[in-house]
Amino acid sequence: MKLTIRKDELNDAIQQVSKASSSRPAIPILGGIKFDVTHQGVTLTASDTDISIQSFIPVENGEFVIAKIEKPGSVVLPSKFFVEIVKKLPSAEIEIEVKENHQTSIRSGSTDIQMVGLDPEEFPVLPTIEETEILSVPCDLLRSMIRQTIFAASTSEQTPILTGALWSLEDGLLKFVATDRHRLASRTAAVGSPPEYRFSNVVISSKTLNELSKLVPDESKLIDIIVADNQVLFKIDNVLFYSRILDGTYPDTSKIIPQQFKTELVLHTKTLTDAIDRAYLMSREEKTNIVKLITLEDGTIEISSSSTELGRVTEQMEVKEQNGEQLRIAFNSKYMLDTLKVIDSEYMYIGFNGAMSPIIIKPTDHAHSLHIILPYRTTG
Amino acid sequence: MKLTIRKDELNDAIQQVSKASSSRPAIPILGGIKFDVTHQGVTLTASDTDISIQSFIPVENGEFVIAKIEKPGSVVLPSKFFVEIVKKLPSAEIEIEVKENHQTSIRSGSTDIQMVGLDPEEFPVLPTIEETEILSVPCDLLRSMIRQTIFAASTSEQTPILTGALWSLEDGLLKFVATDRHRLASRTAAVGSPPEYRFSNVVISSKTLNELSKLVPDESKLIDIIVADNQVLFKIDNVLFYSRILDGTYPDTSKIIPQQFKTELVLHTKTLTDAIDRAYLMSREEKTNIVKLITLEDGTIEISSSSTELGRVTEQMEVKEQNGEQLRIAFNSKYMLDTLKVIDSEYMYIGFNGAMSPIIIKPTDHAHSLHIILPYRTTG
Repeated sequence: MKLTIRKDELNDAIQQVSKASSSRPAIPILGGIKFDVTHQGVTLTASDTDISIQSFIPVENGEFVIAKIEKPGSVVLPSKFFVEIVKKLPSAEIEIEVKENHQTSIRSGSTDIQMVGLDPEEFPVLPTIEETEILSVPCDLLRSMIRQTIFAASTSEQTPILTGALWSLEDGLLKFVATDRHRLASRTAAVGSPPEYRFSNVVISSKTLNELSKLVPDESKLIDIIVADNQVLFKIDNVLFYSRILDGTYPDTSKIIPQQFKTELVLHTKTLTDAIDRAYLMSREEKTNIVKLITLEDGTIEISSSSTELGRVTEQMEVKEQNGEQLRIAFNSKYMLDTLKVIDSEYMYIGFNGAMSPIIIKPTDHAHSLHIILPYRTTG
Repeated sequence: MKLTIRKDELNDAIQQVSKASSSRPAIPILGGIKFDVTHQGVTLTASDTDISIQSFIPVENGEFVIAKIEKPGSVVLPSKFFVEIVKKLPSAEIEIEVKENHQTSIRSGSTDIQMVGLDPEEFPVLPTIEETEILSVPCDLLRSMIRQTIFAASTSEQTPILTGALWSLEDGLLKFVATDRHRLASRTAAVGSPPEYRFSNVVISSKTLNELSKLVPDESKLIDIIVADNQVLFKIDNVLFYSRILDGTYPDTSKIIPQQFKTELVLHTKTLTDAIDRAYLMSREEKTNIVKLITLEDGTIEISSSSTELGRVTEQMEVKEQNGEQLRIAFNSKYMLDTLKVIDSEYMYIGFNGAMSPIIIKPTDHAHSLHIILPYRTTG
């Protein structure tokens, strides 16, 4: 294998794929980036077996030559060092040559690097995915849907299935759900797919979705999603992103969503967020994050929290609409704050069924999002 | 104590002083900010006994009223919560009222906070410093002098005196020195003080100097420095910064600086920095950070480092001037990189006395800085 390649394009592709290479690999090969060089271009691949990312650099982009291929071939180079050194090389061009035993020379300007390469035959083989059905979604929509759900996923490895987000597609409606049993976030979007194309119980690790989100540009261009038996493949430009589907069956959360409420409030989202944020600062001193919400006789609400060492914060807040019974309830201020931060509507709706029942939070502008927070059972 | 104060001015002063309040206080009072309110204004003080910072907010600034004092008095409020809540209060004005037992009400818009205040009588008393001799130095010069020396201070508590920087003043020349016994950084500046004003063995913790640096603006305005028996006081605008002087005698480092060299090089600073940076990336894989420098027959130098697992980096570099013997030497690439980053001159001078003797590094543009790095004793 021997080629000359432009530093900037190589660096961009390396930054993309390196997110999939393991920082503490179980075996050295998983901490590497595989180079596959043909006369068409250079394919880089990294994989920690949960995530695999592949990026293709063509020999030219129509405007100028990116890579000159002298001899095709393959090699695996250690990711961590390679990621950092490439951007610091002194010349705009880099020459890479693989000799016997995968020994690799990298030359750029007056810099000469001899690297111990690894055998590309030992690198994990990417899953073969038949592209029978492709779902195309705008990149910015996918990013929003991920951001508005994964914060509610569990971080505990005791319930592995809940560390992921549940994806399903039915009647052209894509739905993401995440829950840690104390709160739930769900988001739907009409994606215009044919009604016969459907999937369910596709659970993807929230860590993986977070990495995917960083790779996806915040624009309306389409990303292709292909769901296979135990893998999901995302395709955007020259990049392929493979994610494993988590094993197990995601719990049915549809039954816990109440349809009727004893108390209903419509509140200004930003005003409530700021008030909860101040109450949170006091509540976290007690580690429990308990905040109380009380409806007052004068039609306002009071939000309060206290700490034995510091004192007490009390917030009074106007209500836009209120229906039903008066209410006293306590909940985790951090959970409420996480939820409020993803509500993309000027006003929001909160529904209650007494102090012991789930709290429902929805934007008022649309019906795409629904959030649940379980209250604290406090005395007094 | 009762007053109304503008949020922005209160917040600025709190951010300044809070750096001195202990995040894990031995006694609660050291984790607090003291408020002293008079009809002239509000004085805030924080102290962890090593550092004390005081900031004064006048009742008006000539243009508008900052604070309306209803009743003078004092209180100590817990710093951590207060620092965060103030900037998040909903109104531009904040009302603070201290009642019985230091109970403090803070009101702003629809927010009401009841805080458990502490007894101001228990707060540490700031040292009384007689301002007989004042040294005035431009703020940006002080910042540079700190930045160009403290990186070389020791981080080991086994040699407490070396965790500080040594300051001295003699014949109008201010000098900062820091060393961890493996390297040394020194910086001098003519500050125009009268020749009879002098001090020596003033050792200030590098952690303290780092905090001071953040508080000092990067501009040519003057900061006043007053050196007392065991304290140094810095005065800038309405802020007073007190630092303890470290106990003990700083070692005499003047003898270890050689005056003659067997090999002398003049190199382009940026080119050497980049080459050492690449060699450092490889060398740190071995934890020792060893980099080798060799003068070649063709008048260039070669910089190299290697790792058994990764491979080897070799850099060839032009020399602007070279005098004396050929040389092979090894040193810590991290130490060299730290030094090169503070050399503010396009070209730099390096002097050697063989592979076992200290390396001297100086800018070529001026004689204000001098750095020493001890080489590694390697075989081969």
